[in-house]
Amino acid sequence: MSMTEFVLHERLDADTVPICDLALSRALLMDDARFPWVILVPRYAAAVEVFDLREGDRAILMEEVARTAQVLRCRDGIQKINVGALGNIVPQLHIHIVARHAQDAAWPGPVWGSGARVPYTSEARDKLVNLLARELRN
Amino acid sequence: MSMTEFVLHERLDADTVPICDLALSRALLMDDARFPWVILVPRYAAAVEVFDLREGDRAILMEEVARTAQVLRCRDGIQKINVGALGNIVPQLHIHIVARHAQDAAWPGPVWGSGARVPYTSEARDKLVNLLARELRN
Repeated sequence: MSMTEFVLHERLDADTVPICDLALSRALLMDDARFPWVILVPRYAAAVEVFDLREGDRAILMEEVARTAQVLRCRDGIQKINVGALGNIVPQLHIHIVARHAQDAAWPGPVWGSGARVPYTSEARDKLVNLLARELRN
Repeated sequence: MSMTEFVLHERLDADTVPICDLALSRALLMDDARFPWVILVPRYAAAVEVFDLREGDRAILMEEVARTAQVLRCRDGIQKINVGALGNIVPQLHIHIVARHAQDAAWPGPVWGSGARVPYTSEARDKLVNLLARELRN
């Protein structure tokens, strides 16, 4: 699989804004103000399942997931991180990392398939993207 | 964190049957005939988030997830693997690996929070546990 031919799936492109590129993955912010929600997309053209990645890239992906989870866990009021790779609708391999708390719109259920997303104001979105870009690169 | 004090959370114990112990994780079969569904629980006493594990153990966990996903993906009729670490209800770190297809009871939504589980017959359960134990150890 070539990394040069990577094109983000149109559904991910429509629902998110880019944060930054990590060693393996493109980090995206889900444009949903209900939940602090990052999506990591390994920049492979054709990966669908985690076993489509090479072992070394899987280890890098795990570290990028752990780092993102830790950054989100440190936000005010967050009690739990949810990690998921589903892909029933968007086959391109992508990992959701979602910050949860007991008063959020879907607790204790999963965020996937739970109601409609509520876009950020552009000001709030830009502020969060800049903050996450800084913290994820640390 | 000590691995010697590992005790499986009572909710996981109630909903699953053991398959086998891998290098890091205990592999459990969710007793739900609607979905071929394995849960991996790293045998740590106190891990809640993936970043609670050491980096080396995270890499092992990723390989155990990938191996389990590959085994489930090879089953008849399976189209997609869903991987999730939620923990909103059961804090003990555990990773769901669920085999999905377009005619299953929750498609394309997530399995978590979707209806009530349907236990296997003891015969079907034993057969699947034995088969998965053999394949996961390969």
